[in-house]
Amino acid sequence: MKVWGIITLLTDFGLKDAYVSAMKGVILSISSSVIFVDISHNVSRYNIRQGAFLLSVVSPYFPKGTIHLAVIDPGVGLSRRRIAIKGKRCLYVGPDNGLLLPAAKAEGIEKAVEIKDERFIHPSTSTTFEGRDIFAPVAGNLLKGLSIEDLGPEIHDLVEPLFIEPEVKEDRIVGLVIHIDWFGNLITNISKRLLETLRVIAGISFEVNLCGVSKVMRFCRAYGEVPDNSPLIIVGSSGFLEVSVNQGSAMALFKAVIGSKVEFIISTV
Amino acid sequence: MKVWGIITLLTDFGLKDAYVSAMKGVILSISSSVIFVDISHNVSRYNIRQGAFLLSVVSPYFPKGTIHLAVIDPGVGLSRRRIAIKGKRCLYVGPDNGLLLPAAKAEGIEKAVEIKDERFIHPSTSTTFEGRDIFAPVAGNLLKGLSIEDLGPEIHDLVEPLFIEPEVKEDRIVGLVIHIDWFGNLITNISKRLLETLRVIAGISFEVNLCGVSKVMRFCRAYGEVPDNSPLIIVGSSGFLEVSVNQGSAMALFKAVIGSKVEFIISTV
Amino acid sequence: MKVWGIITLLTDFGLKDAYVSAMKGVILSISSSVIFVDISHNVSRYNIRQGAFLLSVVSPYFPKGTIHLAVIDPGVGLSRRRIAIKGKRCLYVGPDNGLLLPAAKAEGIEKAVEIKDERFIHPSTSTTFEGRDIFAPVAGNLLKGLSIEDLGPEIHDLVEPLFIEPEVKEDRIVGLVIHIDWFGNLITNISKRLLETLRVIAGISFEVNLCGVSKVMRFCRAYGEVPDNSPLIIVGSSGFLEVSVNQGSAMALFKAVIGSKVEFIISTV
Repeated sequence: MKVWGIITLLTDFGLKDAYVSAMKGVILSISSSVIFVDISHNVSRYNIRQGAFLLSVVSPYFPKGTIHLAVIDPGVGLSRRRIAIKGKRCLYVGPDNGLLLPAAKAEGIEKAVEIKDERFIHPSTSTTFEGRDIFAPVAGNLLKGLSIEDLGPEIHDLVEPLFIEPEVKEDRIVGLVIHIDWFGNLITNISKRLLETLRVIAGISFEVNLCGVSKVMRFCRAYGEVPDNSPLIIVGSSGFLEVSVNQGSAMALFKAVIGSKVEFIISTV
Repeated sequence: MKVWGIITLLTDFGLKDAYVSAMKGVILSISSSVIFVDISHNVSRYNIRQGAFLLSVVSPYFPKGTIHLAVIDPGVGLSRRRIAIKGKRCLYVGPDNGLLLPAAKAEGIEKAVEIKDERFIHPSTSTTFEGRDIFAPVAGNLLKGLSIEDLGPEIHDLVEPLFIEPEVKEDRIVGLVIHIDWFGNLITNISKRLLETLRVIAGISFEVNLCGVSKVMRFCRAYGEVPDNSPLIIVGSSGFLEVSVNQGSAMALFKAVIGSKVEFIISTV
Repeated sequence: MKVWGIITLLTDFGLKDAYVSAMKGVILSISSSVIFVDISHNVSRYNIRQGAFLLSVVSPYFPKGTIHLAVIDPGVGLSRRRIAIKGKRCLYVGPDNGLLLPAAKAEGIEKAVEIKDERFIHPSTSTTFEGRDIFAPVAGNLLKGLSIEDLGPEIHDLVEPLFIEPEVKEDRIVGLVIHIDWFGNLITNISKRLLETLRVIAGISFEVNLCGVSKVMRFCRAYGEVPDNSPLIIVGSSGFLEVSVNQGSAMALFKAVIGSKVEFIISTV
């Protein structure tokens, strides 16, 4: 009986070229019982942290056994390692640059290995497109039942991504914009959990300093609690505090970029 | 035996974030025998009418039993209802804001229900991403065999989208641009059926007034009937009259936007 | 037993409209045991050569029996023929304008036919969207087992795409930019094979003239062999020589466009 498996793909390859489909073709040549789900191919070029954020946010929604193939890889062809991680629920394949770690850690890592087996790494391998020539074949073979132990030696020193934690000061939380979504919502590194710890709850208003602008904003549960084109703060679907504009773009309103500093004054207004 | 089903997805979520894949992950966690087809995720933000147009145009091409999951939802988290519609051919799941209705009406509605069952709606449900937390689980369960009767009470007062019908005056048809496609074709609300009623037939030329410009254009059957970069009118593949430019962009030529008024002078030139 | 087949899709339809999904709906109405892989729908509008390049580069990575459905079709509705090609490995369906030929030739053509059978071509067929109304039904039926002989008469005079071969002069190779990828890499028409014939090998530096700029660049094996934001030349994953910038965009640096002339001075620096 054929067992169908799920492979997700996350890259910064864009949707203009044939790169993503080449990876899928390679996988289908190994096993044709696969359901592909594209997470995103429009991660900002070489932005490992943004990719790591997206993968960690979405991974819990996939069923056990899903294989996550992620390639944002500025070091392709150089000495960075290629890895596979077996988590408590899913498998992860990609470069050892911090991209896979937050998602894998969140579910619990059972084992991580460096991909060294000569079935996948050999001298004639392409040095510009390991997504197609190394990572896709690994994912296809994992789907077919290969265990990650067969890929190479166990490793314990995975590269950590550089995430900056928000600072909690006397009367304020100082965070950063870590992602800006399609709607222009500014997703910060301030988690729902931190807000709960600080007993910051929805329904009241806060002063927010962002890109040189200071505004009082309501901490809402739904975007539509404020009038159209008004700013608000909300715990978004990723579990992080977001600065948003109802039916508008917070990115445009504040001229914010990834990395912009955000201050939330906890003393309510 | 596993039965595979088809779920289409139509949103204004864009392709940069992981939102669409989160919905797919949720569905796959319920049933992994699914073929996903993305209709579009690049509908203009919050543009319910554009989404309704695309869904109604494409739905007839999908096989019986297809589940159409559509989320363009400026009222997310507020009091607008969540609905499922059983049509004569397909099922529709999404917000009750007019998005689903034209497609469902075109095939004939057998039953519409409000989604109220506590398996899907409970106090802890996210208020920012019901696509993932309510509509995707509903679609996944419908795929597995749940009947729409189990979702909640039947309703008869579905919200209608605001579509504007073209006006037929003595010597002219006055319509609107309702969609602009990737090629810059201006798709109007003037249907093939209306043209047939008025005995307007291809092969002759018309005066067209659009965005302050008046041009005589041939009513063609194929774009290539006029020279490159020349404007023409044609019944497009959606069954509506389009203003086009052969191998060029009518949007660029006329500086038209969605909502631009178009006048076709019926008295032939 | 159900046999699943693979259909790839390559178009210039973009991802904003419902056009691609309409083709998939039509195919699913014929056979629901299909795995779709989108190669790209963002080929530059009407750019047959760019589409032909992408298809020929990616086709070898798909398994035997894959059906490649490609529609870049400025002549839609006019007299250009519709064709199907049986290659040694895969099947190709699309317009007879050079789009399919490089990929099919590379694997070896067994038979090419003109699609004429009245099941697919009849007077009431749409003249604006043959992708949905002719090519998708053909692909769906080929997937179900129809042989290409049943589509129409064999033909031997397929339209060739206009590809320009690089010129080899005494001390230089003169080529063209034939594709610019998402990263801004400039992919030329100079193949790895030609470089091998000329004994041009990686590890040394060359003078490159491009868009009025002359620069000495290292012929690398990996992008990271030069510092960030430095230009280099490399045989890319498609097997052609590329002008690249490590973690930057060669397109932006040189203001190059598709068709720009590139001179590589073979006499090493």
